[in-house]
Amino acid sequence: MSSFWNHNITLSVFGESHGPAIGVVMDNLPPGESIDVDAVREFMARRRPKKDGTTTMRSESDMPNIMSGYHNGRTTGTPLAAFINNSDTHSQDYGNISKLARPGHADYTGALRYRGFNDVRGGGHFSGRLTAPLCFAGSICGQILERRGIYTGTHIAQIHNIKDTMFDPCNVDRDMIIKLRHKIFPTINDKKGEKMRDDILLARESMDSVGGIVECVITNVPAGIGSPMFEGLENSIAQLVFGIPAVKGIEFGAGFGVSKMLGSQCNDEFYVDEQGHVKTKTNNHGGILGGISSGMPIIFRVAFKPTPSIAQPQETIDYSAMTNETIEIKGRHDPCVVARAVPCVEAAANIAILSHMLDYPNF
Amino acid sequence: MSSFWNHNITLSVFGESHGPAIGVVMDNLPPGESIDVDAVREFMARRRPKKDGTTTMRSESDMPNIMSGYHNGRTTGTPLAAFINNSDTHSQDYGNISKLARPGHADYTGALRYRGFNDVRGGGHFSGRLTAPLCFAGSICGQILERRGIYTGTHIAQIHNIKDTMFDPCNVDRDMIIKLRHKIFPTINDKKGEKMRDDILLARESMDSVGGIVECVITNVPAGIGSPMFEGLENSIAQLVFGIPAVKGIEFGAGFGVSKMLGSQCNDEFYVDEQGHVKTKTNNHGGILGGISSGMPIIFRVAFKPTPSIAQPQETIDYSAMTNETIEIKGRHDPCVVARAVPCVEAAANIAILSHMLDYPNF
Amino acid sequence: MSSFWNHNITLSVFGESHGPAIGVVMDNLPPGESIDVDAVREFMARRRPKKDGTTTMRSESDMPNIMSGYHNGRTTGTPLAAFINNSDTHSQDYGNISKLARPGHADYTGALRYRGFNDVRGGGHFSGRLTAPLCFAGSICGQILERRGIYTGTHIAQIHNIKDTMFDPCNVDRDMIIKLRHKIFPTINDKKGEKMRDDILLARESMDSVGGIVECVITNVPAGIGSPMFEGLENSIAQLVFGIPAVKGIEFGAGFGVSKMLGSQCNDEFYVDEQGHVKTKTNNHGGILGGISSGMPIIFRVAFKPTPSIAQPQETIDYSAMTNETIEIKGRHDPCVVARAVPCVEAAANIAILSHMLDYPNF
Amino acid sequence: MSSFWNHNITLSVFGESHGPAIGVVMDNLPPGESIDVDAVREFMARRRPKKDGTTTMRSESDMPNIMSGYHNGRTTGTPLAAFINNSDTHSQDYGNISKLARPGHADYTGALRYRGFNDVRGGGHFSGRLTAPLCFAGSICGQILERRGIYTGTHIAQIHNIKDTMFDPCNVDRDMIIKLRHKIFPTINDKKGEKMRDDILLARESMDSVGGIVECVITNVPAGIGSPMFEGLENSIAQLVFGIPAVKGIEFGAGFGVSKMLGSQCNDEFYVDEQGHVKTKTNNHGGILGGISSGMPIIFRVAFKPTPSIAQPQETIDYSAMTNETIEIKGRHDPCVVARAVPCVEAAANIAILSHMLDYPNF
Repeated sequence: MSSFWNHNITLSVFGESHGPAIGVVMDNLPPGESIDVDAVREFMARRRPKKDGTTTMRSESDMPNIMSGYHNGRTTGTPLAAFINNSDTHSQDYGNISKLARPGHADYTGALRYRGFNDVRGGGHFSGRLTAPLCFAGSICGQILERRGIYTGTHIAQIHNIKDTMFDPCNVDRDMIIKLRHKIFPTINDKKGEKMRDDILLARESMDSVGGIVECVITNVPAGIGSPMFEGLENSIAQLVFGIPAVKGIEFGAGFGVSKMLGSQCNDEFYVDEQGHVKTKTNNHGGILGGISSGMPIIFRVAFKPTPSIAQPQETIDYSAMTNETIEIKGRHDPCVVARAVPCVEAAANIAILSHMLDYPNF
Repeated sequence: MSSFWNHNITLSVFGESHGPAIGVVMDNLPPGESIDVDAVREFMARRRPKKDGTTTMRSESDMPNIMSGYHNGRTTGTPLAAFINNSDTHSQDYGNISKLARPGHADYTGALRYRGFNDVRGGGHFSGRLTAPLCFAGSICGQILERRGIYTGTHIAQIHNIKDTMFDPCNVDRDMIIKLRHKIFPTINDKKGEKMRDDILLARESMDSVGGIVECVITNVPAGIGSPMFEGLENSIAQLVFGIPAVKGIEFGAGFGVSKMLGSQCNDEFYVDEQGHVKTKTNNHGGILGGISSGMPIIFRVAFKPTPSIAQPQETIDYSAMTNETIEIKGRHDPCVVARAVPCVEAAANIAILSHMLDYPNF
Repeated sequence: MSSFWNHNITLSVFGESHGPAIGVVMDNLPPGESIDVDAVREFMARRRPKKDGTTTMRSESDMPNIMSGYHNGRTTGTPLAAFINNSDTHSQDYGNISKLARPGHADYTGALRYRGFNDVRGGGHFSGRLTAPLCFAGSICGQILERRGIYTGTHIAQIHNIKDTMFDPCNVDRDMIIKLRHKIFPTINDKKGEKMRDDILLARESMDSVGGIVECVITNVPAGIGSPMFEGLENSIAQLVFGIPAVKGIEFGAGFGVSKMLGSQCNDEFYVDEQGHVKTKTNNHGGILGGISSGMPIIFRVAFKPTPSIAQPQETIDYSAMTNETIEIKGRHDPCVVARAVPCVEAAANIAILSHMLDYPNF
Repeated sequence: MSSFWNHNITLSVFGESHGPAIGVVMDNLPPGESIDVDAVREFMARRRPKKDGTTTMRSESDMPNIMSGYHNGRTTGTPLAAFINNSDTHSQDYGNISKLARPGHADYTGALRYRGFNDVRGGGHFSGRLTAPLCFAGSICGQILERRGIYTGTHIAQIHNIKDTMFDPCNVDRDMIIKLRHKIFPTINDKKGEKMRDDILLARESMDSVGGIVECVITNVPAGIGSPMFEGLENSIAQLVFGIPAVKGIEFGAGFGVSKMLGSQCNDEFYVDEQGHVKTKTNNHGGILGGISSGMPIIFRVAFKPTPSIAQPQETIDYSAMTNETIEIKGRHDPCVVARAVPCVEAAANIAILSHMLDYPNF
């Protein structure tokens, strides 16, 4: 009841970082949808460690092996399962953390939850590696959506104190969305991107890490998608996004900014444009009203905490002996997961939107 | 698939603002739990319009009638249904909005979702009134939790630009939690509370409205509650909280603040205290790591947009005729829903935590 | 997690026989569907005690009060809740059964499941009365289906050793279906019906009861509805049908008869008829292959045990004192529930089929 | 929403008969449970084609590869995924059925459901091979149950017109249960078993097939397990059992036999035995009352139709061209699936019971 997401589209994610393989089973995909497997690999590669030194040098092979639900280049509609073998791990780097609770990690909470029986090597089922199956699923959902004109774009909105230019919530440039997908470090403003990368390297040198924010926009979602109360678009997107490690917050439209606004400032006035489309003059509602899409771009931001694995000595406990200890987490660490998280956020958005779209007549 | 929440505890919420009644069916409550019905009414009364002028004068009778699942003062364990009659509505106040889309409301999106067949009077199923059943359910869950030492506290953290004193995330005062429940305007710092109320009245006079933030803390949740990935505590709390109208964001622990932190600042170091309890020196993780409780107070904040119903003229559309129009929403409006939303957030937290607690051995 | 059924259509059933009210909340009904409330009452009246002496004289008022989800004669698409007040109960008739486990009833099992806290009066949540909300929901689903040409028919196939004429599984007479709904004692062959009623009266005089079989057919379900494995039409129908009290078996098509057949006898050969429709020459598969509809009439039978409440003395236990006792269940008892169960089976079929139909494009 | 079963234990089954692999993901297994992998393989081997000529000679390698959720010989509590490679298929045997609808198979219904995009080779996702993952899951659940004294036994109750001795519903011999698991052809009465096998070979020679009935008993399930209405033990077992191909009926306790009984015959009188245990003198209720276990053996029977693939010429359609055709299904066919289905029924029972047991305090 945890690592699967049960809406129209069902996801069942499995795997531990140092187990034989990780993967996902997706059910209830529409039949007959072409899948460009190369595009899936490209999407997944956006989370792989980068050559520019901003992330860990642990290389991973993310080649997904599709086991079912895919035939002659198209979805069959039956469950689609994919595995990714785990191949490159430096167990010894993790050698000194077996019963020590790494601060900011789920070592202690996971040990309690699973009564000590979970596989903790490399973070086990809590590892960031488990975002690979999420990206696989999100890439497939994204291809199905794009065939219908719906595009999802993501960028690094902020690293530490450095902010990128934001999306225009009323007017999303499709070309910019596509361009962002091909950038090694996906920011809208390249100069800001460079400043961010410098800041990340600084953190690495200090044996520290930095956090940030990812912004995501989904365009051309028809109005009327979603349901009120507990299964609105925000509920579904949030439920998936909080499945990505290191997420501590999510906000839609003007987000926490609405708390400082007046109603006259926050309300988005409706109008009918010259082509007969319903739009709003501003988009503080972020494309969602009452849990249901309005037709304006859906836009949200996700807060990521700094990578907990830092090389600096930290105080902690041995949760088996219940003693106070010190820990130094050896090995090369991601000073920042935010760039890697960008496709994960996009994946979550795609899965949520496609799942709701399946309620839409004539999808 | 929308107005019900399906975890261990199941909620099925129904009703339209101007229909015969609203209510909820809860299933899978543990049998044999005492319910103090007066305490339930008190809890629900915390959302009722206030006499201090900060909210609308539309009086509502929120007396819940329990129809099943409750016998001799205790839960039976079979489904518990309650309904609340709708009695006091000023239909004519809503008279001029039948096909006009009130900006910030779900009129337009709801009309598309339900193809024009939903009851729109008073907001229909999207009305803030539908938080009454949520509070009913949350109050019952809260009583069950408190019997086991788990307490939920909430306060208005911010209105417009005025901020209250925040909870101490490492050390929650149970007495303060209880005291907050009895305040008409629940802030920790009473002086700040007065400033907030003045600001709200100012907004009312300007025919405008203000937004804000609610902060919620849950203490004494044992460590090890929750599951990774899609059914962690953050996922469940978020899924319920976004079912409250006007919510545009949620953050846990240091929330969006983590994006500006270094890992060395954000990581919460573990230690074993003198009583042998595991704690952390700081609580930026907000009591949740990997979706699972750590034993530290669970703390989160919710952003509410300003009440969309303002009396100022606004531009909008007639979504039936597809023409551009102007709208003036007559009647007395809530210049701020945040105080009313406080028990709703507490209710959502109670439901989520109890539901997860039911996985806990020997609950 | 028990008294609700969660597929496309969600049902949340609540109530105890002697509590204030019983009812149901249905979610995800398509919006804009007309509901003929009189027809709903007629449908529900088919389960009410009959004047012909074959069932108990405990009169019940089954007038449903719709609380939400219904406006201007049509479904809104938001949750539809209905209550039925409990008004006529002879508590004293049930006076001597408080801790005695009536054989064949759920007194003992319910007491263990709910740790003694369930309301046992009149059978509580296990009472046959709880089929009233199921019939309410099934009637509404039936109206939606019939608007699309899909008809469900039911009859008493057998009482004790007396068998009715069966439906022709290849060719269902719509007029017969309608006629059956208006019979007080719904059999195809009226003479057999009279024999059955005589047998039931005989049982009553002996302070005993009889069981039987209900047969149900659904016509015009388009081919291709359903899913393989765990969410086929048989799985869904069975899951709902076993929610009707006294059910001990279900079979589809030739049912248990297939166990005695050869493949050459059992296989239904396909052919295309003159109108270009795909049919089968025989219908041992009962309209379902691989969990999916074939276009042939869906046909199934349900076994009902004799009413457990008989006036004869029976040996049993006091499950509180754990002693051996004798019990005599006073009051007038249903010697046979099968006639009352006929609309319940029809209701279950309607709900299952409509739920699956909602996956069908252009429903 | 189809090939997964979502209760406490979640199952997600995937795979096509001629795809790369088939398998299952199980979530929410209790952590720390030993798994004897050899015993799992033995369990699965009970469905493999037999050397005694009664089933097809298509050999299959059912060695499951566990990918996650299993560490140091025990369940971790995180999702457990296993896949089974497809290796031995005679595609050419299936060469002449691509658009011809084999009578009794899901070719036609599946083509409609999946709009022609499903992989039909070897039956695709509808193939009997997909019972291998079900058996894998059921074996694991069975080991967890047995550790707590709960045992499931199954045998072939009937083939064609030949009946085996049945289980004693009041008194189940654990040794007999174990012995049955090791028989190549699992009947209680070996002489009857021989007659059945002769009958099966006769069918093979006639290019025909036979059906039958499997009986299953589960002992030592504590009383009080299950829930009323839609999530009782019968509902859950039925929902899983109808996921096994060729099933056309299920009955519990006296099953369809109750329809011919009087109440005085059918009611099972309670008594407290000398050890203070609650029992019933007879067990027509099959261990389940009101959806909840009574403590008596749970007993049910499943009807299997004769294998649809017979070599005799049959009339059918080309569902692509919509023409009438004749078909001869070449290759060696199972004249009877019932022996192979025995472990599948046992698996379904194990999964359902374990899932419900997880609600039981102190499991």
